[in-house]
Amino acid sequence: MLYCVEMDVRVPHDVDPQVFERLKAEEKARAQELQHQGKWRHLWRVAGRYANISIFDVESHDELHAILSGLPLFPFMEMRVTPLARHPSAID
Amino acid sequence: MLYCVEMDVRVPHDVDPQVFERLKAEEKARAQELQHQGKWRHLWRVAGRYANISIFDVESHDELHAILSGLPLFPFMEMRVTPLARHPSAID
Amino acid sequence: MLYCVEMDVRVPHDVDPQVFERLKAEEKARAQELQHQGKWRHLWRVAGRYANISIFDVESHDELHAILSGLPLFPFMEMRVTPLARHPSAID
Amino acid sequence: MLYCVEMDVRVPHDVDPQVFERLKAEEKARAQELQHQGKWRHLWRVAGRYANISIFDVESHDELHAILSGLPLFPFMEMRVTPLARHPSAID
Amino acid sequence: MLYCVEMDVRVPHDVDPQVFERLKAEEKARAQELQHQGKWRHLWRVAGRYANISIFDVESHDELHAILSGLPLFPFMEMRVTPLARHPSAID
Amino acid sequence: MLYCVEMDVRVPHDVDPQVFERLKAEEKARAQELQHQGKWRHLWRVAGRYANISIFDVESHDELHAILSGLPLFPFMEMRVTPLARHPSAID
Amino acid sequence: MLYCVEMDVRVPHDVDPQVFERLKAEEKARAQELQHQGKWRHLWRVAGRYANISIFDVESHDELHAILSGLPLFPFMEMRVTPLARHPSAID
Amino acid sequence: MLYCVEMDVRVPHDVDPQVFERLKAEEKARAQELQHQGKWRHLWRVAGRYANISIFDVESHDELHAILSGLPLFPFMEMRVTPLARHPSAID
Amino acid sequence: MLYCVEMDVRVPHDVDPQVFERLKAEEKARAQELQHQGKWRHLWRVAGRYANISIFDVESHDELHAILSGLPLFPFMEMRVTPLARHPSAID
Amino acid sequence: MLYCVEMDVRVPHDVDPQVFERLKAEEKARAQELQHQGKWRHLWRVAGRYANISIFDVESHDELHAILSGLPLFPFMEMRVTPLARHPSAID
Repeated sequence: MLYCVEMDVRVPHDVDPQVFERLKAEEKARAQELQHQGKWRHLWRVAGRYANISIFDVESHDELHAILSGLPLFPFMEMRVTPLARHPSAID
Repeated sequence: MLYCVEMDVRVPHDVDPQVFERLKAEEKARAQELQHQGKWRHLWRVAGRYANISIFDVESHDELHAILSGLPLFPFMEMRVTPLARHPSAID
Repeated sequence: MLYCVEMDVRVPHDVDPQVFERLKAEEKARAQELQHQGKWRHLWRVAGRYANISIFDVESHDELHAILSGLPLFPFMEMRVTPLARHPSAID
Repeated sequence: MLYCVEMDVRVPHDVDPQVFERLKAEEKARAQELQHQGKWRHLWRVAGRYANISIFDVESHDELHAILSGLPLFPFMEMRVTPLARHPSAID
Repeated sequence: MLYCVEMDVRVPHDVDPQVFERLKAEEKARAQELQHQGKWRHLWRVAGRYANISIFDVESHDELHAILSGLPLFPFMEMRVTPLARHPSAID
Repeated sequence: MLYCVEMDVRVPHDVDPQVFERLKAEEKARAQELQHQGKWRHLWRVAGRYANISIFDVESHDELHAILSGLPLFPFMEMRVTPLARHPSAID
Repeated sequence: MLYCVEMDVRVPHDVDPQVFERLKAEEKARAQELQHQGKWRHLWRVAGRYANISIFDVESHDELHAILSGLPLFPFMEMRVTPLARHPSAID
Repeated sequence: MLYCVEMDVRVPHDVDPQVFERLKAEEKARAQELQHQGKWRHLWRVAGRYANISIFDVESHDELHAILSGLPLFPFMEMRVTPLARHPSAID
Repeated sequence: MLYCVEMDVRVPHDVDPQVFERLKAEEKARAQELQHQGKWRHLWRVAGRYANISIFDVESHDELHAILSGLPLFPFMEMRVTPLARHPSAID
Repeated sequence: MLYCVEMDVRVPHDVDPQVFERLKAEEKARAQELQHQGKWRHLWRVAGRYANISIFDVESHDELHAILSGLPLFPFMEMRVTPLARHPSAID
């Protein structure tokens, strides 16, 4: 099942930069792992913002929540989740 | 270049149903034509709403506007356009 | 899978009252049918508003959308859909 | 009487992690106690957010407020309370 | 139990004036009846708007909803309901 | 003259708890003094939130502002003030 | 006592133009009468919008509401009322 | 003096198409006249919406309001006006 | 030219009180100087909020911005600027 | 391709002033460099706010994002990006 997830990253100005850089590296590794597994189907940067628009393909709401809440940057992200259904005009 | 476009259709309750059904059929034909051309890359229904989330792949803002404003249901749609850049963690 | 759906009914003041009453009766019949099937698990009235908060239990986003968009009052309703996951502190 | 309560947890990034973990454990114990008492009737996680949607069944606004304001994580939560009435189409 | 209810009246410009005046007279009679019964405890006009802020004192959410949804102007009103608990600093 | 005032208290998580408790005690004493004087006519807790809805009865905007801005918790409160006029359907 | 009132005029596109022009003329006459009486102290046009920002100087909320709700264009206006107190840095 | 003006056109679905087309033609002629005079310095289409972002260069707020409120489509437009000052980092 | 400026002061709870009191005194002196010059024409307190509504009369957007951004409390204020034109019904 | 970008700068009150001044100087140098390259076509100050409205002319969303996210003050700015198409009434 598909979900559109929009994630905005909010970095507090007094966060420890080294800690944050390490979290970013872990986030990148985890994002790529999930893409290779086919669960994180699309990942786009929103131009001009520290944000992304993503498409997830998972089995259930529980799996989606486990993935999202386990992201290293989750404590710094605001998320909007939209469940996607098949569109009657879609050709695929 | 990629754009995320979220479209909400607002149908006035006193619109002529025959007129609207004809517009919907034209919209569907046009949407499928644009998908076959590779310009309307993804088209998903937002579950529970008369709305969609779409990804367009076009040459320029001008082309995007020409396509969107030419859709048969454009007068009944509210649109939010988000330009998408490459994400540094994307694997494709 | 569970979804929380909040539905607000907007009745245009110049709608035909007979048409609307017939739609309401059909909506009620359909709502009860879906409750008996176990798909519409909970249905509560929001006090003071022509609105409800509901819990649906269906197989997929597609099934949810088919149910919601097929409701007789769908053209008059504004919906907010929230996918629900299991809570780690829930006892059931 | 039933209330829908939506709770969002906001964790300040510079909170003491040990203090917060202890509060979370206390919150979980209290949530389960209230569920066993039948007062916290449903507790669902909102997929993708550190938030829940809950149904409470209590005697009065005063009892509801006493319960909610006494939750260990109350100082970190933003709440929206909606009183629920019986829906004329509900079958239970 | 007490509830604060804020009601905004929206009058469509093309409503039949005679019909609306009759509804207003019925609304006034009903509002006074409920005040005499002690259920509509306070009724104030919001200065500069066709709106009121009211305090209701009823037995349950169901009674509140029955009263509000039965008001003659209900189809033209937008309502916000807030359940009120006892304040620890209140002297009454 | 009557005013409806809705007050939300925002407590920064890193405020000194002893300082805040002292301010709360002072706030309570001041709230009760103003109630005894008949100026703070009603004080209700909003169920589920650290907030209140109040009715003030004072001579002028200046007196209202002097009272509100002099409350011990004023620096931590967000306020919405609504001037109330007599309602033509009120019986008192 | 002073109040800042922001008024936005919403003209339905299908209103009878003659009726509306007559209401506008009446509104202008009334606005000038109230200015001569010193009750409508300032009246400014918001650049680019069919809206004004005004300062009223009246005895009470009741007088303000009587004036505003009696304006010929009141049914077409959305109003925001802000009670103004003396500022400690004002020199007048 | 410069102003950024964002204009959204709202076309009621039951407007007379011939009347609206004539207004659009008049709007275009007027927009071009104002551009030739140097008062309407920039005019861009917002991609995907019946809206524009414009820069005006006029003598005063009064002149701006006279121009905007005199546009043939003014009754169908919602406008947001932002006064622009010189930026200390601008090179022109 | 006239501008309506609404200013909200946000005081961080952990600001140095002495520094803030000194800025407030400087702000007051500057506000009075600008009033004596006729540039800050009106200054009113919003009842119940640490905020003001002001009318400025200056030569240009640049002068307005220089004045506002030079206020001692500018870093702690959120501002909304509205350019005001002459109203056709104003008598002055 | 053209983009309208509105940037609001949020300066935390406890940021190191020397660090921030250095970032501002770097931001100014970078803004001027981009203007000389023709990529940052217009840069205006929003009167009364620490904000700007800008027009960028770049090759792609990727180039826009690289420029914006590389600005020295990017971590302190909130941005709204609007893609601009050619307007049919524009004369240039």
